[in-house]
This record gives sequence, structure tokens and C-alpha cells, in this order.
Amino acid sequence: MVNTEPTRLPELMTHDRDQLDSLLESTIVATIAFVAPDGSPALIPTAVAQWGERLVVHGSTGSRWMRQLPGSPAVVSITAVDGIIVARSAFESSLAYRSAVVFGAFESLTGDDQRAALEVLTDRLLPGRVAEVRASTRKELAATLVLSMPIKTWSLRVSAGFADDHPADLEGDAWAGRVVFGDRPSTVEPAPDLRAGISAPPSVNGISARH
Amino acid sequence: MVNTEPTRLPELMTHDRDQLDSLLESTIVATIAFVAPDGSPALIPTAVAQWGERLVVHGSTGSRWMRQLPGSPAVVSITAVDGIIVARSAFESSLAYRSAVVFGAFESLTGDDQRAALEVLTDRLLPGRVAEVRASTRKELAATLVLSMPIKTWSLRVSAGFADDHPADLEGDAWAGRVVFGDRPSTVEPAPDLRAGISAPPSVNGISARH
Repeated sequence: MVNTEPTRLPELMTHDRDQLDSLLESTIVATIAFVAPDGSPALIPTAVAQWGERLVVHGSTGSRWMRQLPGSPAVVSITAVDGIIVARSAFESSLAYRSAVVFGAFESLTGDDQRAALEVLTDRLLPGRVAEVRASTRKELAATLVLSMPIKTWSLRVSAGFADDHPADLEGDAWAGRVVFGDRPSTVEPAPDLRAGISAPPSVNGISARH
Repeated sequence: MVNTEPTRLPELMTHDRDQLDSLLESTIVATIAFVAPDGSPALIPTAVAQWGERLVVHGSTGSRWMRQLPGSPAVVSITAVDGIIVARSAFESSLAYRSAVVFGAFESLTGDDQRAALEVLTDRLLPGRVAEVRASTRKELAATLVLSMPIKTWSLRVSAGFADDHPADLEGDAWAGRVVFGDRPSTVEPAPDLRAGISAPPSVNGISARH
């Protein structure tokens, strides 16, 4: 049994699936936690994409952790920092964030599912990139583990807005407000060995990031 | 025994402590993985700061997970995405990232250590903020758990540069290079209930973020 309910600050919890989708659209990295065979805690930071009702991740068949993941209970954390909520005291100051945790187990994808999920991951990082490059070879597919977890049991906590300062602090001279982080600007750099006359494709132009 | 050695891509591993410190300076969020008392994997996303040879995090004494953490084996993941390495094939494309994992156990800090660590955390988010606000009260300190883990056993993987494309792909028409993410711009917004005449302090001006 997995307890996905918070023990504190329940007002930050939301069950709004749109907000979960929005977080997944703005965040490309997740951290997967699981219990290693020897009972010790283990984690894998990895790129993540949403594919319908599933999370998908991928790795090398040479990755020991990735190979051990399928079938074991796992927890996936996806966190976005949106800014800093600045209170009149250090105690009431905090991060503005959105933090999702998805509970379940990963399964390994094969065949058409594997190929489709890889395309989702590629286009997640560089929208439209799949159409610009050759298809993956059988050898490449054989060297790639693609894992998926259903988005079924999850919790989402969203901290936004302004701080709720103590009444006594409201009378003081300390500033209060927030620092809001915008998207990261991106710069495109061609590879040193790029052949002349090949210009940057649409998939890499205009990318902005929030992670 | 903790295996901190990679099973693949060992060329991405570094034991350069300066690079670890640099990652900790540019990243304010960590994900802590541990094993819950019932044997299931658990994780806590949280703000993190470096305090000399320790990582420090904090939470509420009302947080069940935070309370269970001290003394148990834990793993801390700190990941920064620096961009996207765009290869001529989907297979060779990847994230540019720096990813550290610190292994150990957290201990709870009390007294002067607790207060000092909280100041480190506050100034980590808003440099100079501690000097701008009142000191934390005893009641606030009693409601706050501050945990630290020694930075002793860790691994760091850095992926940068350009892709190593297959020779056959070098002859093709696909573009290769990278997308480099810059720092996130920040906007300062006063609280709706801020008293007139209080201007934003140095700690909140000029903050840029990479997370």
C-alpha cells in the first residue's frame, strides 16, 4: 500500500491532472528511486517524457540500474522550481515549486512500443527531430532499454503565490514578495565537424527550457 | 558497501571535487532517496545547500519522511541540465548534464549547528538575506528539522561537448551540434500587502538561476 497523502501542508496538494501534465511538459528530468537488490536505496536521474497515460524513460542495456528497475516498486520525482517566495522572515521564505511523485513499477517496452516511445523521447527534447534524422537501426534498438510506468498513482504539490507572514512581521521594515524565474534562453552551436552548408533545423531553433 | 563506480560510460565519471562544488553552487534542488520502514522506496525533493564538507537540507518537524531520514542509508541526487547534445541520429543525441550522487546518512543538527545551517540555506537561496531579516525565534527553530550528510562518498558524471556520430552519419545531411541553456532570468514582484516605501533589497535583485 502506498501512502500518497501528505502529512503536512495538505493545502499545497492538488489532484488536478492538467497541472500534472503541465509540469511534465515543462520538465525533462526525473529522478527514479527504487530499492537495490541488497536493500539499499538507489536512484537514477534521467530524461523523462509523457506518452499518453505513461511515463517513459530510456537507457543503455549496459546500465545495471536500468536493468534492475523493471518489476520493482519505484517512485518517480519530477520537480520544477518556479522561483523564490520571499517572506519577511527566513522561516516563512521558501521555494515556489511544483513537485510530482508518481508511484508504480516500470515495465520494459519492446517492438513497436519501444520504437514509438523512443520517438516520443526524442521529440520531447527536440520537437520535430524524429522527422529530421534517420530511423534507429536494429542494433541501436537492441542496445536501448525503454521503460514505462503508468501515470496512475501520483501526488502533486504546488507552492506558489506569496508568503503568509506573521502579523508582527507585517509591521516591520523587511521586504516581501517573490522572485519569479523565467525560461532559460538557449544558444545553438554547430558541431566542429559539421559539413559546410548544413544549417540548424527547426527542431533546435527556438527551444527554451525551464529545468 | 556502496558501489559508486559506473557500469558504463566510465569516461563521463569525474572525481574532481571542484566540479562537484560547482554543481552544488548552480543547483538548489536535490532529490533524496531512502527506504521507508515498510521496505518501499521513498524520496524527498528538497532545497539543498553545501556547508563546508556537508550537504544540508531542512523541513518541518511535521514531515513524516524528514523525521524518518536520520540514521538510515540515503542517496542524494543533484542534477543540472546544461543543454542538449544534438547528434546526426536520435540514438547518439543526449542531454548535456552534470549529475552527482552523494551516499551516506543524514544526521539531525541541533543548537548552534542548526541555526548556522539554516542561515547557510537562507543565504544559499537569497545571498545576504540573513542580514536583512530578524533572527529565527526559538519556536521557529523548534518547528524545523535540519539534517546534514557528509560529502564523503560521491560520484559525479558530466556529459558535455559534442556527439560522437557514426562515421556513416557524418556523410549525411543531418545537422549536429548542441543547444546550450543559459541562466534563467528573474523578475522581482513585491507582495500585495507590502507597506509603501520598502524597496526590494540586494538579496533579491540580480538573482539568476540555473535550475
